[in-house]
Parts: sequence; C-alpha cells; structure tokens
Amino acid sequence: MESSLFWLIPASSILALILAWYFYKQMMHVSEGTETMQKIASHVRKGAMSYLKQQYKVVGLVFLGLVILFSIMAYGFNLQNPWVPVAFLTGGFFSGLSGFLGMKTATYASARTANAARTSLNGGLTVAFRSGAVMGLVVVGLGLFDISFWYILLDYCIPADAINPANKLCIITTTMLTFGMGASTQALFARVGGGIYTKAADVGADLVGKVEAGIPEDDPRNPATIADNVGDNVGDVAGMGADLYESYCGSILATSALGAAAFIGSGDIDMQFKAVIAPMLIAAVGIVLSIIGIFSVRTKENAKMKDLLKALSLGTNLSSILIIAATFLILWALQLENWIYISCAVVIGLLVGVIIGRSTEYYTSQSYKPTQKLSESGKTGPATVIISGIGLGMVSTTIPVLAVVLGIILSYWFASGFDFANISMGLYGIGIAAVGMLSTLGITLATDAYGPIADNAGGNAEMSELGQEVRKRTDALDSLGNTTAATGKGFAIGSAALTGLALLASYIEEIRIGLTRIGEEILIFADGSMIETHKATFVDFMYYYDVTLMNPKVLSGIFIGSMMAFLFCGFTMNAVGRAAAHMVEEVRRQFREIKGILTGEAEPDYARCVAISTKGAQREMVFPSLLAIIAPIATGLIFGVPGVIGLLIGGLSSGFVLAIFMANAGGAWDNAKKYVEEGNFGGKGGEVHKATVVGDTVGDPFKDTSGPSLNILIKLMSMVAIVMAGLTVAWSLF
Amino acid sequence: MESSLFWLIPASSILALILAWYFYKQMMHVSEGTETMQKIASHVRKGAMSYLKQQYKVVGLVFLGLVILFSIMAYGFNLQNPWVPVAFLTGGFFSGLSGFLGMKTATYASARTANAARTSLNGGLTVAFRSGAVMGLVVVGLGLFDISFWYILLDYCIPADAINPANKLCIITTTMLTFGMGASTQALFARVGGGIYTKAADVGADLVGKVEAGIPEDDPRNPATIADNVGDNVGDVAGMGADLYESYCGSILATSALGAAAFIGSGDIDMQFKAVIAPMLIAAVGIVLSIIGIFSVRTKENAKMKDLLKALSLGTNLSSILIIAATFLILWALQLENWIYISCAVVIGLLVGVIIGRSTEYYTSQSYKPTQKLSESGKTGPATVIISGIGLGMVSTTIPVLAVVLGIILSYWFASGFDFANISMGLYGIGIAAVGMLSTLGITLATDAYGPIADNAGGNAEMSELGQEVRKRTDALDSLGNTTAATGKGFAIGSAALTGLALLASYIEEIRIGLTRIGEEILIFADGSMIETHKATFVDFMYYYDVTLMNPKVLSGIFIGSMMAFLFCGFTMNAVGRAAAHMVEEVRRQFREIKGILTGEAEPDYARCVAISTKGAQREMVFPSLLAIIAPIATGLIFGVPGVIGLLIGGLSSGFVLAIFMANAGGAWDNAKKYVEEGNFGGKGGEVHKATVVGDTVGDPFKDTSGPSLNILIKLMSMVAIVMAGLTVAWSLF
Repeated sequence: MESSLFWLIPASSILALILAWYFYKQMMHVSEGTETMQKIASHVRKGAMSYLKQQYKVVGLVFLGLVILFSIMAYGFNLQNPWVPVAFLTGGFFSGLSGFLGMKTATYASARTANAARTSLNGGLTVAFRSGAVMGLVVVGLGLFDISFWYILLDYCIPADAINPANKLCIITTTMLTFGMGASTQALFARVGGGIYTKAADVGADLVGKVEAGIPEDDPRNPATIADNVGDNVGDVAGMGADLYESYCGSILATSALGAAAFIGSGDIDMQFKAVIAPMLIAAVGIVLSIIGIFSVRTKENAKMKDLLKALSLGTNLSSILIIAATFLILWALQLENWIYISCAVVIGLLVGVIIGRSTEYYTSQSYKPTQKLSESGKTGPATVIISGIGLGMVSTTIPVLAVVLGIILSYWFASGFDFANISMGLYGIGIAAVGMLSTLGITLATDAYGPIADNAGGNAEMSELGQEVRKRTDALDSLGNTTAATGKGFAIGSAALTGLALLASYIEEIRIGLTRIGEEILIFADGSMIETHKATFVDFMYYYDVTLMNPKVLSGIFIGSMMAFLFCGFTMNAVGRAAAHMVEEVRRQFREIKGILTGEAEPDYARCVAISTKGAQREMVFPSLLAIIAPIATGLIFGVPGVIGLLIGGLSSGFVLAIFMANAGGAWDNAKKYVEEGNFGGKGGEVHKATVVGDTVGDPFKDTSGPSLNILIKLMSMVAIVMAGLTVAWSLF
Repeated sequence: MESSLFWLIPASSILALILAWYFYKQMMHVSEGTETMQKIASHVRKGAMSYLKQQYKVVGLVFLGLVILFSIMAYGFNLQNPWVPVAFLTGGFFSGLSGFLGMKTATYASARTANAARTSLNGGLTVAFRSGAVMGLVVVGLGLFDISFWYILLDYCIPADAINPANKLCIITTTMLTFGMGASTQALFARVGGGIYTKAADVGADLVGKVEAGIPEDDPRNPATIADNVGDNVGDVAGMGADLYESYCGSILATSALGAAAFIGSGDIDMQFKAVIAPMLIAAVGIVLSIIGIFSVRTKENAKMKDLLKALSLGTNLSSILIIAATFLILWALQLENWIYISCAVVIGLLVGVIIGRSTEYYTSQSYKPTQKLSESGKTGPATVIISGIGLGMVSTTIPVLAVVLGIILSYWFASGFDFANISMGLYGIGIAAVGMLSTLGITLATDAYGPIADNAGGNAEMSELGQEVRKRTDALDSLGNTTAATGKGFAIGSAALTGLALLASYIEEIRIGLTRIGEEILIFADGSMIETHKATFVDFMYYYDVTLMNPKVLSGIFIGSMMAFLFCGFTMNAVGRAAAHMVEEVRRQFREIKGILTGEAEPDYARCVAISTKGAQREMVFPSLLAIIAPIATGLIFGVPGVIGLLIGGLSSGFVLAIFMANAGGAWDNAKKYVEEGNFGGKGGEVHKATVVGDTVGDPFKDTSGPSLNILIKLMSMVAIVMAGLTVAWSLF
C-alpha cells in the first residue's frame, strides 16, 4: 500500500452504503396510503420475493455445480488458482444481494410514491427518485466494497515474488477477476429469468386484457396484472441491479488487471500499483460525485413536467462534468505515468456513453421523426409496423457502433501515448474509458431504477382507483423515467462493449503472463517453458498462438461467436413466446370460468398467474444460461486459445450490434404506440393503434429480455474464458 | 499451357451455352395457349423488360463512374493494374447478360408451362424445368467462358517475369479477380433492385387485395397483380441469375488466385499452373455432369407429385455423386500435388451445402415441427407469430454455422496436409470446398429458377381463368419448387460464406505479394522495400501489418463490418416498407376511383403499379448499393489494411449469420401460412390464418430482399477491397 489515496476506495464504498441506508429509512417513513394500496403493494412484494427465493434456489444449484468443478480444477489438477472457488461465490453473493436490496426497496416504494403523488408531482418524484438512488448506491457501494475487501485480503495473503515482484499484482488482479465471473453468472440468471418473467406476464396481460377484453392497462380485473407488476420488479429492478453490478465490477477489475500487466515488464512496482488502483480511485471519486448529484435533484413545489426533467438532467450532468475535473485531479495526485492522456480516456468514455444515449433517444422517442414515421406505418397494418421497426432498429446501430469505434481508437491512442505499438498501455486506456463511462453509475442507475418504481406506482394507483389526477401524475413520472432511461440504456450497452473488450484483453494478458497457478515462483509460458516475462510481449503472444485472422481456428471461433449471440437471443425470444402462451391460456380460462370477473364482482386468481410466470421463467432460463457458460469452455477444448479469442470477438461484435438493434427496435415500437395513444393517426382504439400494439408486444422481449441479456452474454463469455484459461492452455483437440 | 486438360474448360462452357440455346428453342416451340394467356404473358414480359432496361440505365451510370475512377487510379497514379477498368466492365456485362437471358426465357416459359399443364402435370414440369435449365446453363456457361477467355488473353499479353516466373500466374489470377468485382456490382444492384421491386409489389398486392378486399392471390381484379408477377421475374430470376453468376465466378477466381499464391515460393511453375486450373477443371466437369443430371429428369406420363419430386432429386443427387468421383479422377489426371486431400475438400464443400440445405428444409418446411409450431403460435395473434418466427430464425442459425465451421476446419486441414501451419495450402482448400459446393450449379440453379416460372404459370392460369384443375397442377409444380429451393438456398448462402472467405484470403495474398502494378519486374512489398517473395510468408504479413486481434484498427474494422450487415439490411427493409406503402395507396386509390374493378367490369390500371414498383426500386437501390462499395474504401483510407481485414471478417461472420436468420424466418413464416391454408388451426380465413398472413408479409422482405442481398454484400465488400488494395496500401489516416 504505497499510497494513502487507496483508502479513499473503501471509504467511499462505505459512504455509499450509509447513504443508501439513509435514503431507505427516509422512504420507509412515508405513508403507504390506503388499505387497498397497502394490500396491492403487499401482493406485489410477496410475489416478487417468492420469485426471487425460487430463483436463488435454481441459481444456488448451478453455483454449487460450478464451485465443485472449480474446486476439482483448483485443488485436484492445479489447473486453477486456489482462490477461485471462494472468489466466485462472493461475486455471485454480492451481485444477488444488490438485486435483492434494490428490489426490496422498490416494492416498498411504489405504493408510497403513489401516495405521495396524491399530494403533488414533486412529492412523488422525490420518493421514487430517492428509492431509485438506494439501488444505485447499493450497487456501487457493494461493488467497490467487494473490490477493496478482496484487494486487501489478497495483498495480505499472497507472498511477494522473489524473481519478479511485479508478478504479485498480476496475481492479485487476475484472481479478483474471478469474482467477476460469479457476479456475471448471477447477473445472467437474473436478467434472463427476470426478463422472461416480466415479458411473459406483460405480453399475456396485454394480449388477453387489452386486445381481447378491451380493458385498460393495470386494470384489477385482469388476472395477470399483479404478475405484470411483479415482473417490473424482478426484471427491471433486480435484473438490472445484478447486471450493472457486474458491469461496474467487471470494468474496474479488468482495467486493474490490464494496468498490472502493462507495467509488469517495466520494473517500476510503484507505478504498477498506481495503474492498478487508478480505475478504483476514479470509481471512488465517482461515488462521491454521484451523491452530490443525487442531492442536487430537488425542485420547487408545484413543479411542472419540464422542471422535473431539468432537475433530473441537472443531477446527472453535474456529476458527469465534475467527474471529468476530478479525474484529472486525482490522477495527477496519484502521479500516474501519462496521467493527462489517461484522464482523457475517461472523458472519451463518458462522451461515448452520452452519444449512444442521445442516439437511442433520437431513434426511440416519439418526439423525433423515426418513431413518428413508425407510427405512421401502422396505417397499412401490423405487418408494415414490424417491417419498419426492424428497419429502424437495424439502421439505428450505426451511430452507437461508430461511437464505440471512435472510443476504442481514441482511448487506445491517447493512453498509448500516440503509439499504436504500445499495446498494453493502449488496452489499459480502453479499460479506463469503460470505467469512466460507468463512474457515475450511482446516479445514472438511480434515474434508471426510478422508472419501474414510477411504473408500479401507476399500477397501484390504477388498481386502488385513486382517480384520474393521481394516475396522470404517476404517468408523468413514468414517462419522465422513459426519457432518462434512454441515456441509462446507452451507458449499459456501451459499457458492456468496452468492458467486454477489456475482459478479452485481460484474458490474453492472463495467458500471456502464463499465470496458471499461484505460489510457484517462476512464470510458466503456455508451452511449459520458462521465460522472462518482459520478453513475452503482446505480439509474441499472438505469434506463439497464431492468433492471426487467417488461422481457421480463429475464424471458426468468430463464426461461432456470432452465432452464439443469435442463438441466445433466439432461445430467450422463444422462452418468452412459450411462457406468454401459457399466461394467455390461463387468463382466458379465468375470464371464462370465474364468473363476474369482468364486471368487477369476483376477484381474479392473481396467484396462479404469478405462479405461471415464476415457473415459466425458472424452466426457461436454465438452458440459455448454461449455454453461455459452456460455449467458451467447449470452444476452448476443441479449438484452443485462438478459438476462444475468436469466439469472444465474434460474440462481442455481433452481440453488441444485435443488442442495440433489439433495444432500439423495441423502444421505438413502445413509443410509436404511445405516440398514437397521444391522439395521432386516429388515437387509442383505432386501426393504427391496433397495429402499433402488435409492434409493442413484439418489442417487449426485444428490449426487456433478449437485448439486455446480450449485454451480459458478452461479458460472461469473457469471464468464463478467463477463469477456464488454465484448462484451455492445458489441453485442446486441434 | 502445359496441360491439354485446360481445353476442357472453354469446351465445356461452349457446350453449356449450346445446350441452353437448344432448351430455349425447344421451349419456344410449345404453344403459348389462348389469346388471354398470351396477352397476360406479354404484359408481364413487357413490364419485366422495361424494368430491366431502366435498371441497366442506373447501373450503367454507376459503372461509368467507377470505370472513370479506376482509370484515373490505373493510368494516372499507377495505383492499379491497367487491365482493371476493362475487366471490371466485362464482369458486369456478363453478369447482367446472365440475368437478362434467364429472365427472357422465364417470361416466355410461364404461359407455356400453364398451357402444358392443361394437358398433364408432367408436361408442365418438363417445360418449366427445361426453361430453368436454360438459366442454369447460361450462368455456368457464360461464367466459365468469361474465365477461360480472360485467362487465354492475359496469358498472351502479360510478359514472363524474369526474376520470378511464378509471378506471372499471380498477376493473371489477381487481374481476373477484378472482373469478379464487375459481376458483384451488377449482382448487388440486380438483387437489391429486384428484391425491392418484387416485395413492394407482393406486399402491396397482399395487403390491399388479400387482407382488405378479400380477393384471392393473382386475381386479375387486383391492380398490383401484374407487378407482382413481373417482380417474380426481375427479383427471383434476373436477380438470382446475376447473384449466382457472381458466386460461381468469384469462388473459381479466388481459388485460382490462392492456388497461384500457394506455389509462388516453391519454384515449381508447373504445379502452380495446375493449382490455378484445378478449380476451373472441377467446374468444367461439373457442367458436363449437370447436363447429364438435367437429361435424367424425366418421368412417366400421369406421374404423381411424389414421382416428380423423385425425378428432380434423382437429377441433382446423380450430379452430386458423379462429381465426387469425377473430381478424384480429374485431379489425379492433372497430377496435382496432394490431389487426394484436395479432392476431399470438394466432398466436404458438397456435404456442407447438403447439410445447410437439409437444415433449411427442417426449419422452414411445414412437414416439420418448427414451422407447425409457428402456425400454432397464431392462436394468440400476429404478435406471437412474429416473436416465434424471429426466435425460430435465430435458433436455426446453429446448424449452418457449425456446418460451415466444420467445412472451414476440415477443408483447410485436409488441403494443408494436416498441418495448420501450412496456411497457403489450407486456404486454397477452403476455396476448393467453395468450388465443390458450386460445381453442380448448372442443375441446382435449374431447380431453383424453375420455381418462379411455375409461380408465374400459376398466376397466368388464375388470370386466364383456366379452371381449378390447371391451377391445382401449377400449384403442385410451385410447391415442388419450394422444396427444391430450400437446398438451392442452402448452396447459395453456404457458398457465399466460403467464397467470401476465399476472397478475403486472396486480398491478403494480393497485398502480401505486393503486386501493385503489372509490368514492373520486381516485387514491391507494401512499405516500398524490395524483398524476395518466398520469404514473405503469411505470418510475416500478419506481423508486418499487425493484423492481430488486439490491434484497435482490426477491432474497429470488425465492429464496423458487423454494423454494415445490419445497416444494409435495415436500409433494404425500409426501402421495401416505403415502396410497399406507395403501392398500397395506389391500389386503394384504384379500388376507390375506378368503378367496377371488384365486379370485374372494369380493367385495373396495371401499368401504373408496374411503374410504381419500378420507380421505387430504382430510387431505393442506389444508396445501400453505393454504401457497400464505399465502406471498404473508406475503412481502408482511415484504418489501413488491418481495418479492411477486420471489416471483411466482421461483415462476413455477422452477415452470414444474419442472412441465415432472415432467410429461414422468412421461409418459415411463408410455410406456416401455407400450413394453415392446408386446413390446420381453422384454415383459410380464420383468425390464425390472418395472424400468419402478417408473418408471411413480414417474411417477404426478410427472405427475398434483405437476406439474399447480404450474400452479395459479403462478397462485394471483399471484391472492392481487392480492387482498391493499391490505394489502401499507398495511404491511410492511422
């Protein structure tokens, strides 16, 4: 521990957790409203908790299996670092905990938001936003806490390396990466399971309730309506929390590992340490600035919609601008080599996030031409809505891809000191850009998590029959959430791409350094020969493994990677289709068999719909998730290291483009429907509306199941490759 | 010309052209039927011809621009081979001619097929199939003729290289590749323009005629019906002809270039020559065997559906089996080094094509579970049909990708003599596999082109009111075509992937050999230094340009390549959407303004619909097509050679997977609708049928516009890169 600045990292993580606790307590003091409101909230809470319990059981079994496998590999065959099984478990635990705490808060907050909205719009905003902030702060707080805890522990436990002291930090950072795999695995199940749950309920509720029976959204007569509200919590809150916990930790850990690798040959241990903690420090500063941003979100009483948007934007913009200044300051204080250029990489990362967010907004908001034209295509029926939406989504991939490309090239170029041959430093720069993009996650996630809370508050208001005025206010809060969510989604997708790249680079670094086992005092290169590490450059590695673009193993990997992205999406789409079909049958059955539902005289059997979504999600999530874990292992066993690298690059490039396509097409369909509902092209109930409802239904699994799950697939495959590197190096078929 | 076997090549091409002429004459002797039939056929013919004329005008302008550009590069700046402008023009000319002749035959054949079907099913089959064979033989005949013509010409014109005689064949083969770019450019416009034309008409006709007015397919009261039939010809016949002409020539030329490069360092000029002509010889033998196959397609009078299918399968299977035996024989006779292993690569290529075809059939035919389940999802409306179809299409990418991966690995492994380090020979093997897959194109294309002829015959029968019996027969012919088309599509997509790879390898070989200008007697490596060629190995090249997977320029290229595939699809999808919307408006206007259309008392204004499709296709095809040409040039100018290689690989992998997804989803939606029409789930007119009609409409641009255009995008981008290599090497921004 050469720098006292290090202690900023655990300190800021604890600060985040304390404030999360404070916001939680504050929210709990608000009244939950009438008895009906409390009853409905408790229904949703119970459904959500029972789902999560069920999910943790399944995930627990998968974790058990993986821990046994890792233990055998680590203790039986020396193919793995002995810390892996433990690190893997804690990563999974904290990722799950983030989702759990976020969701618990959300389920308590929705009725309170609705109740506060009975008095004023501003009141509703405060409750919902501060509850969202609980989730944001829990994610960054637990993430950075976990990182500092492991760093201190490993620093204490791992002995210094007599031959090359620089090895120690490499061992620490690559070991820490394996806790990222635990987080990824947990996140994948949460995203896939939650995504299937929420969309099965949503599609089922819409198809029978809205389309067939003609009753409005969130109507208490619809048996699937509670399941739909539960879905918002397990999918959009718990799923997103686990997802971003993983992105956040993944980007920091990968960048630290790249930093350790970049300085391994320099002999400057002090500088190596600085490069390792730099990303953590940027994140720590980001936490403090997020908190400042969160507190700055306040508005006058009787504020209008526009004021609210301004207040939210002010918070996120303030944090972003401050982080730029703070990064230059902290990296200067750290005296990191090239600190100016590396700070520039942070700025680049933030800019890429903003560009992607803006482009998402342009292509998916009903304030702009693309979505308005999409609504207009409904004049010729549902088929043209689908054709135009797919066209829109595909075209919308251009700007985000170009932004990421620019981000990759520039952050690499700056960090390498304008020398493309300085690969290790260049890759470190890409990682730093990812960290920069996610540094203000505390507040961006708050604005994101606030959305489903407002959505649920609307549902609660509708079911409790609080009247038009309240529903209007919760709708305003909800629609505000949609606008801010566009930026949040941009950050989620963009950071997944950059983090995926950083993880891929760490994979190569890990093998390059030949670090197959801790405790040995020599460095073993993959073929078993001992070499001096500083001689094994990046290009040597590429040469040794023949990771060139004409190696058929690399090519095969790339093809399989591209296919994996599509296959994974296909499975999740089909899963939603099947689970939704069951839901539709059940809702139809209840309408048919339980007399008096539609007149409001009998209560529908909500629990059964909740059970169907739960069961469907559990059954359907296992196969695609296991596929994501098995694919890199199998590719490694057949095609070796070149095949794995190809797989990761193919999956990353295709998966990234596919994820944007799906997210934007889905978002545009959603808002095209809203645009019609606002009174355009015949308004609600007209032919164009019916056509756009079909688009919206198709878009649901696009934007909330398959699209976001792809973000995790990209990262998880790299994580698995990193953890399994020892096995891949030891044996492959070709 | 060291081997007299060479003369087999021009001889077989002339044989193919003579037989095409014979089949054409034979077809023209059949009566065109009643006066109405003749009138309708002439309407369609005129529409198709006027479209093609219009298209050639636009394409002519693009060619003019490109030829001027190439001439400046070649004669002004020495950045290009002086033969390029001329070769480029002939490639475009012959590709266009193939489409034109095929389409001309098809428009003469449809009424004649309908007329022959008045007598017997077998009569209809013979006319339609032999007319399809005209197209198949014209494509392979003109292709091989063009190849042998250029080979002989260049062999005569280019002086021998005193320093290294092996250079001459490298110069010849890379020069010939540029005529492939002409063919690609022509093919892209034909596919994109034709695809937009046919689907705008089809979607427009279906949406207003079938869905809104409730009149059957091909009903003469529908104003868009002639445009729809014209579309089948310009899209499925002329477009496909130009496409496969390009695949055929591209695979042979790329493989010849790889053969020349593989032996450049060996000093064995004789063996180099053999490697160059081997792919041409395999194709020549394939022509002869295709002709045998075509003649074997005959069946007894009063044959049933099953007998017909048997007859067609017999023809294609016979050709395939014979080609395997013949390849071993001819390569043995040629005494090519490693002839056994290289012959195995041909078998592998054929097998990959068969596997992809079978998997396409499984996922898209209504005889199997996936499509039947897709129909069933119509029970819950159009939204679930779309969700399930997209899921099905995405999952269906697995087998084709694994088949291609297996094909790449095995053909490389065999041809390299089981040594992965023998890169040049390995890549030659991949090229040979592509040639093998396409060797029996003469007959596979015949079974493919026969489909739209039967389709048009059905349209003619309907419009001429020939009665149920005849219509039933033409429907049977049409549905037979759908089954055989599945295999044909498998070959088209699979060969595009392998050809794309072979072209990419040729690109690298071209730069590696440093062949920037013919006539200089020294070989210049990219940095301007003179080196001995046999020392510049593949790995040296990769090293020199740093084409490793962690070079940010390579990564950027891969991301842009993936994005290009999506962007290109998005543009073509939107183009169909827009053109179809115009068509819908026009048909609605006619129904509204021309009184008596629906009662059959007044004739609709067919010409106006034809004009709308023509104009729409012309306007919409230019931008996406130019994009495909500009992208590799721009990437090269910004990111240099590593960026271009990344672009090609990203485009190839994502484009291939995306193409399969779109083709299979589209095919499954089409047949899911047919399955319902066969009386399942409530049959025609029921709710499920309406839902599946939406799926079918969405699937139209998937399977007939965007999907097939991607095949060409993959190849064209490589072709452009090859032709522009001089410029890329001379200058780039990074």
